[in-house]
Amino acid sequence: MNLRHFVRDVPDYPKKGITFFDITPILKSPEAFRYCIDRFVDLYKDSGATKIVAADARGFIFGAPLALELGIGFVPIRKPGKLPYKNRCITYDLEYGTDTLCMHVDAVEQGDKVLMIDDLLATGGTAEGMVKLVREAGADIAGAGFVVQLNFLDGDEVMKANDVRHDYLLEID
Amino acid sequence: MNLRHFVRDVPDYPKKGITFFDITPILKSPEAFRYCIDRFVDLYKDSGATKIVAADARGFIFGAPLALELGIGFVPIRKPGKLPYKNRCITYDLEYGTDTLCMHVDAVEQGDKVLMIDDLLATGGTAEGMVKLVREAGADIAGAGFVVQLNFLDGDEVMKANDVRHDYLLEID
Repeated sequence: MNLRHFVRDVPDYPKKGITFFDITPILKSPEAFRYCIDRFVDLYKDSGATKIVAADARGFIFGAPLALELGIGFVPIRKPGKLPYKNRCITYDLEYGTDTLCMHVDAVEQGDKVLMIDDLLATGGTAEGMVKLVREAGADIAGAGFVVQLNFLDGDEVMKANDVRHDYLLEID
Repeated sequence: MNLRHFVRDVPDYPKKGITFFDITPILKSPEAFRYCIDRFVDLYKDSGATKIVAADARGFIFGAPLALELGIGFVPIRKPGKLPYKNRCITYDLEYGTDTLCMHVDAVEQGDKVLMIDDLLATGGTAEGMVKLVREAGADIAGAGFVVQLNFLDGDEVMKANDVRHDYLLEID
């Protein structure tokens, strides 16, 4: 399957001059969506991962089914104020300003091997924040899987700099 | 399985005097999460549904795996500005003020039988908005499935008033 046929280029979103890669056509196609999850299962079935974390909101769409298929727990990572129980949060630098991500304090623990799943690896800012959040909780990163990697941005380098093995199902140059 | 053991009561969230029912313990337990999806599959495998819609963000966590299991497309419903392609939106009344929900214009079409999935049926405000959005696109509602129904709020009546058959996996009085 050529996954590129299911990623729609949307010009000038979220602002003028930026092209957004829209993955909703993957979701609309049962075959393309199943293909993504099956490839992730192949990549991670022997990874020893004990939990999957994914960030609000598109990460949930890929991370949750994969957790079910691998038979491991799913942990949502969200912005401050979105998770009802006690939160562990991290604030990290982005190109312009900062951002904050949180998870429940009992979501992962020491000894967990945590797999991160997201739809897109772009600048790597969010992914790096997730890595730090998981490691500060005392857990290890088992790997990071992305549906799409944008090769013209620095996400690949950021993952390597953080010593995280990562995989992607489609790269866009 | 008693799903109630996996729903955590969080007092005074999102504001004082309100108890929030936190479903993240379901997600953390592979057995509880799998139980939910299997029960939804049993409920809807013969429904003739052609698409699943779910709202940002917890709805994605249950709706996406179910779409995969049923072999039908998944359609995300989000707040304005969150979906990159052309949007169809609806603004609906809530107890205090209004809210707006959107989906892509090509997400569902006439002839689709759409199944709505969400974690919680409370006042029914969001669910009613989703019903209107889907019907305005010319599609039919095949049903609505919720992990939890709060019996002390009006969601049940709202679904009946909208002529939507709905199911839930756990009711809380």
